[in-house]
Amino acid sequence: MAQGSDLEIARAARLRPIAEIAATAGIPADALEPYGNYKAKVALEAILGRPATGKLVLVTGINPTPAGEGKTTTTVGLTDALRRIGVRAMAALREPSLGPCFGVKGGATGGGYAQVVPMEDINLHFTGDFHAITSANNLLAALIDNHVHWGNALGLDPRRITWRRALDMNDRALRQIVQGLGGAANGHPREDGFDITVASEVMAVFCLANDLADLQARLGRMVVGSRRDGSFVTAADLKADGAMAVLLRDALAPNLVQTLEGTPVFIHGGPFANIAHGCNSVIATHAALSLADVVVTEAGFGCDLGAEKFLDIKCRQSGLAPAAGVIVATVRALKMHGGLAKAELGREDVAAVRRGAANLVRHIENLSGFGVPVLVALNRFGTDTEAEIDAVKGAAAAAGAEAHLCTHWSDGGAGAEALARAVMARLAAGTASFRPLYPDAMPLAEKIRMIATRIYRAGEVVIAPAAARKLEGYEQAGFGHLPICVAKTQYSFSADPGLLGAPTGHTFPVRDVRLSAGAGFIVALAGEVMTMPGLPKVPAAEGICLDPAGRIEGLF
Amino acid sequence: MAQGSDLEIARAARLRPIAEIAATAGIPADALEPYGNYKAKVALEAILGRPATGKLVLVTGINPTPAGEGKTTTTVGLTDALRRIGVRAMAALREPSLGPCFGVKGGATGGGYAQVVPMEDINLHFTGDFHAITSANNLLAALIDNHVHWGNALGLDPRRITWRRALDMNDRALRQIVQGLGGAANGHPREDGFDITVASEVMAVFCLANDLADLQARLGRMVVGSRRDGSFVTAADLKADGAMAVLLRDALAPNLVQTLEGTPVFIHGGPFANIAHGCNSVIATHAALSLADVVVTEAGFGCDLGAEKFLDIKCRQSGLAPAAGVIVATVRALKMHGGLAKAELGREDVAAVRRGAANLVRHIENLSGFGVPVLVALNRFGTDTEAEIDAVKGAAAAAGAEAHLCTHWSDGGAGAEALARAVMARLAAGTASFRPLYPDAMPLAEKIRMIATRIYRAGEVVIAPAAARKLEGYEQAGFGHLPICVAKTQYSFSADPGLLGAPTGHTFPVRDVRLSAGAGFIVALAGEVMTMPGLPKVPAAEGICLDPAGRIEGLF
Repeated sequence: MAQGSDLEIARAARLRPIAEIAATAGIPADALEPYGNYKAKVALEAILGRPATGKLVLVTGINPTPAGEGKTTTTVGLTDALRRIGVRAMAALREPSLGPCFGVKGGATGGGYAQVVPMEDINLHFTGDFHAITSANNLLAALIDNHVHWGNALGLDPRRITWRRALDMNDRALRQIVQGLGGAANGHPREDGFDITVASEVMAVFCLANDLADLQARLGRMVVGSRRDGSFVTAADLKADGAMAVLLRDALAPNLVQTLEGTPVFIHGGPFANIAHGCNSVIATHAALSLADVVVTEAGFGCDLGAEKFLDIKCRQSGLAPAAGVIVATVRALKMHGGLAKAELGREDVAAVRRGAANLVRHIENLSGFGVPVLVALNRFGTDTEAEIDAVKGAAAAAGAEAHLCTHWSDGGAGAEALARAVMARLAAGTASFRPLYPDAMPLAEKIRMIATRIYRAGEVVIAPAAARKLEGYEQAGFGHLPICVAKTQYSFSADPGLLGAPTGHTFPVRDVRLSAGAGFIVALAGEVMTMPGLPKVPAAEGICLDPAGRIEGLF
Repeated sequence: MAQGSDLEIARAARLRPIAEIAATAGIPADALEPYGNYKAKVALEAILGRPATGKLVLVTGINPTPAGEGKTTTTVGLTDALRRIGVRAMAALREPSLGPCFGVKGGATGGGYAQVVPMEDINLHFTGDFHAITSANNLLAALIDNHVHWGNALGLDPRRITWRRALDMNDRALRQIVQGLGGAANGHPREDGFDITVASEVMAVFCLANDLADLQARLGRMVVGSRRDGSFVTAADLKADGAMAVLLRDALAPNLVQTLEGTPVFIHGGPFANIAHGCNSVIATHAALSLADVVVTEAGFGCDLGAEKFLDIKCRQSGLAPAAGVIVATVRALKMHGGLAKAELGREDVAAVRRGAANLVRHIENLSGFGVPVLVALNRFGTDTEAEIDAVKGAAAAAGAEAHLCTHWSDGGAGAEALARAVMARLAAGTASFRPLYPDAMPLAEKIRMIATRIYRAGEVVIAPAAARKLEGYEQAGFGHLPICVAKTQYSFSADPGLLGAPTGHTFPVRDVRLSAGAGFIVALAGEVMTMPGLPKVPAAEGICLDPAGRIEGLF
């Protein structure tokens, strides 16, 4: 069993030099740009254009609960397990956002003996990618207001500037601001606001770009606002795309790190999954598939949000297709979906597990519907009973998915070997035949209805009249072929975070839509989703400091 | 003579691996944290606590003009020249700010054959230090508003919050904002604004800290605002100091790079010199002095601003003392101080040079007054005539300083060997006896008057009544011993940027003062100085892009 905190386990580990890890993955030393001894960027020249011959396994989850499921932990444990059974495997993960680190204690690099290291670096500045994205976002913002200030030759309507500023920080005070105050030298006053960097379109563009040229082209297509006649003004109109690409150039090379067991992992890009598309970069996934036989990747939050976007946005745009999917669940979380409170999770309640398993079953059905063979990873907790575990296995089997008990948190890759063997058997069977949920040609409002009724199982879909008009405008402007990126709560299939389990017949309300022309999708905002989080009453930051030896305390 | 642009010259250079450069400087390979192959951070454990036995040479300049003087270029050329004549020399420089790169074309890493490389990296994200500083600054800002939002237990008066947010971007629209709009969930609305990162107190703290413990203590002392009773609230009161130190930990290790001639250079920290104290980090200067026999460092902008602050703030706090000073001048810039327009600089005008040399002479007098032996570096341009050069040499000699013609821009270190020999002669003579301008015990208003009358040669010093009251309050609160950091235009000895040459009798107006309790100085704002720059009508960003090979175009 594991001893100590994630941080203690990570610190006790002996990391291997990153050049050794790279060699394991078949990456030559001269393709590495080292960041210290245990992190490196891999030069784009060395990885772009190689055939992506590996098979892709998608790890996703049930709707998250406060009980925790361990999606990243499972991604790491499964990849380590694959290597233990002799498979040339790699993982491709998202970079964590800095902002949340100072809110609620905890990192985003797995846990126990299934972690990616060096975890402190990865959770803080890492190789600076998010800082580069923040800078690019805010350079565009500065160029927009500067353009208006100096005469507004493009005729941008200052009331219709949609581009927002960004910070990688949880800062509610910046959600809605008035800027440009203080007189003529400070420009035109107007309403604006900041989103967290991981919610920005630049982050999505960064993660969906195929190469530097595609990055620059996508940046140029981003719409920053419109004129009085409704026509769009883009970043290219402002000549901002080149300078933004320059700021992002070095960041676009994927970051190589290792698991505690020395498995090579790309961690690159990290859009939030509730308000953005929620997957690591296309470049990292492609690179991993060109280097490894099996690549395990992760889509954020529940299968309804993360996996749907992974499939309908990332796979659609990039040509990627998963060969298998793994849905992560825990007995404890399913009990919460079955109606128990967090304080009640300690005692056996098979009936609650059975009720809650409806959430898992629904995700299995949905993912299977995309033509992806599904397995279930059941992360074992000490309080789980055999009867509860059997209840989960039974429900999963009835839905057509084997469930495998996993103990990688305490046992490392050895604790996920059964799952790894089952994954390999599925890959060998070759039954995957990925198809997206909807065709490009479907009208935008229909796409939203399709997601809401087929995936979320809503009874009614209510698109606010102004949003419906915007969708029509997007279609008239030639953006009707784009896929939909839903922004909604991750806690429920519905837009109501309190509606657990497997609700049906609920009303799905779309209050606004936004065009992300560079990323190549339309964001549909449902319910109360914050694009800039706040900090709690007692932020984790208060307990974080350096000890006398200069080591970090209180972060994890 | 030099061929091509700075960027072309830098790209044509063959850089040596940073571990080789480190070895040249006596830094063991295991003390390096590489960032790619040509940049590295040097571990604090390897450099702190070593005796600083080297001699320090300060490079400063006349008041800058649009004709240019080449202060960084001279710092680089002189250091290269010292190594050419067999001296174990290093340079310690400031990191450039990202924001200005997108305003007016040009970098801040020297020029011609006297450059620090890799110049594109150094001028863009480099090793991420400024991003870490921006994050720490904005984490504190978020914690302040979060504290007020959740009940304001410390009793902070929201109208008296003085802490501002920061971005490393030229963005006039953010100078003055109203934030916290949109209802209770977004906190309390209040006025706020953003400064450019290089103007923030966190930057000053970063540059003045002796080690990690001093950094954390200084961060804790920073005042963020006051209560209704006027008492101060600090970052430590908000328990923000630890998390901020964690964000800055890795950044505090100095960055090692090289000149085009392979001379080791520390580039670390970079407060602006007009609105902050304008010198690289104490840690980098100390580290260089513990490794090299002679260290050449630079203070920003003119001698009146940069050198005065270097001496009265950095040297006072750190115990450093320069053994010699070099004032950089050009015939062209002195002609502008003599009254010529930029278009008139091409033709010989000895009388204008003689008039303008008054600016140089005043700086020589001032710097000599600190007990620092002074030399003049006369950066040669093709249009300079012998008679003009002789006029400068004569004026400098009359003020007690030898002037040496330098051609390092076109010839590299070989073009500054005469200057290097003269510097070594001065060091050998050992005539330096540094004394600060004023004692700690002098009242704050008196310190301001001393700087304005002795250095700027003002006739009258007018401190606005509200500012005078704030100074009294600082003294009562126990901050009367702190030195003064003047924020004023760099273009003139006075607070009026149009007043060139060597004005006397002008009125020096102090409109506001600010306490930087963590940095350990009081900022006195004189005239119109922006703490957040704007972009010009045609920003350099418009011409910056990636070429098809992914190389940066248009940045330099």
